[in-house]
Amino acid sequence: MKTPTKISPAVIKRLPRYRRFLIDLRKKGIERVSSGALSELMGYTASQIRQDLNNFGGFGQQGYGYNVDALSEGIDAILGLCAHYHIIIVGVGNLGRAVANYTYFYKNEFEIGAMFDIDPAVIGTQIGGVTVQGVDLLSDYLSGHDVDIGIITTSRSSAQSIADVMVGCGVRGIWNFAPTDLEVPEGVALQAVHLSDSLHELVYYINNQK
Amino acid sequence: MKTPTKISPAVIKRLPRYRRFLIDLRKKGIERVSSGALSELMGYTASQIRQDLNNFGGFGQQGYGYNVDALSEGIDAILGLCAHYHIIIVGVGNLGRAVANYTYFYKNEFEIGAMFDIDPAVIGTQIGGVTVQGVDLLSDYLSGHDVDIGIITTSRSSAQSIADVMVGCGVRGIWNFAPTDLEVPEGVALQAVHLSDSLHELVYYINNQK
Repeated sequence: MKTPTKISPAVIKRLPRYRRFLIDLRKKGIERVSSGALSELMGYTASQIRQDLNNFGGFGQQGYGYNVDALSEGIDAILGLCAHYHIIIVGVGNLGRAVANYTYFYKNEFEIGAMFDIDPAVIGTQIGGVTVQGVDLLSDYLSGHDVDIGIITTSRSSAQSIADVMVGCGVRGIWNFAPTDLEVPEGVALQAVHLSDSLHELVYYINNQK
Repeated sequence: MKTPTKISPAVIKRLPRYRRFLIDLRKKGIERVSSGALSELMGYTASQIRQDLNNFGGFGQQGYGYNVDALSEGIDAILGLCAHYHIIIVGVGNLGRAVANYTYFYKNEFEIGAMFDIDPAVIGTQIGGVTVQGVDLLSDYLSGHDVDIGIITTSRSSAQSIADVMVGCGVRGIWNFAPTDLEVPEGVALQAVHLSDSLHELVYYINNQK
């Protein structure tokens, strides 16, 4: 595999989707796939697919297509999904629980080390074997543990201060679900899931067909 | 306001974010804002902002900037957020509950008419005043009610068949949280929140700084 140079954010955004479709193909026992067949499945043009995957080199072969296993493993390697990530969740309402449940399916890659909340009724309860701690213990925990990913499922008003504590204690990436745009310094990765943005976009397309 | 012609999906995707920032400005009592000031807040270039908002015409005035109220209301009108939407939720696990809680904050625009689940332990329970029904009653309910938005927070395996029932009964838009790409016919709006895609993108940026 050639060393990736600068890959555009648009390509990176598509990679997890390629990965999902490839996993489906693997489950069906399909060993190889052409860019044309991927195009029909995924709705991207075949040339877009070839161009996307060419960023990483060496996966496709003319007249053969792509080896599904190799491509899927290659994408995992590019994304960094062969490693193990230590995560914490701050905010254990329904959304925090949903995200926790979600990560339990991917225990090999993502391990919840701790969960924090501000609500005394929630502190001390167990979720998937992890005892919820008071959020006042967050920086203590972070000082003693290497945490890769901090998940923020708090209210909007406390999200930035929680992010600041995480960043100050060396958390490398933040996955934000609070409905606000967080600021983090360079060198810290940030992804946000803005439910309202997605819903409002849907409403637009209900009223204005694509 | 000039009648919008064909607005690019990229602009539509940014509109809800403009909306959030404008609501913040309104809350702070700020009445007007320049494209330069919006640029500093939002990280888009000032020329990008002028170009985006120019799609809808009439909001900006040279030397004055944008009237925050008018722009915010204009964006609401474009997105269709002045109307009232009847929604249902299928799949009442943690994620379904989280989405339900989330929409309770926006009761003026979004009203949950019904919730459905397959689990007998959940059927019959109340969430925010709505009694969860068995999913076998979904098509009956849809036959008797005009539903604008169907929210799918089921497992991956049942998501497409739920979507098919919704589409068959005239639901206009689907908001999908199940980790699979749904197929809907033309004329039905579809938005998906793929948690795994977002997490995998985050992992990439933890390992490869932007």
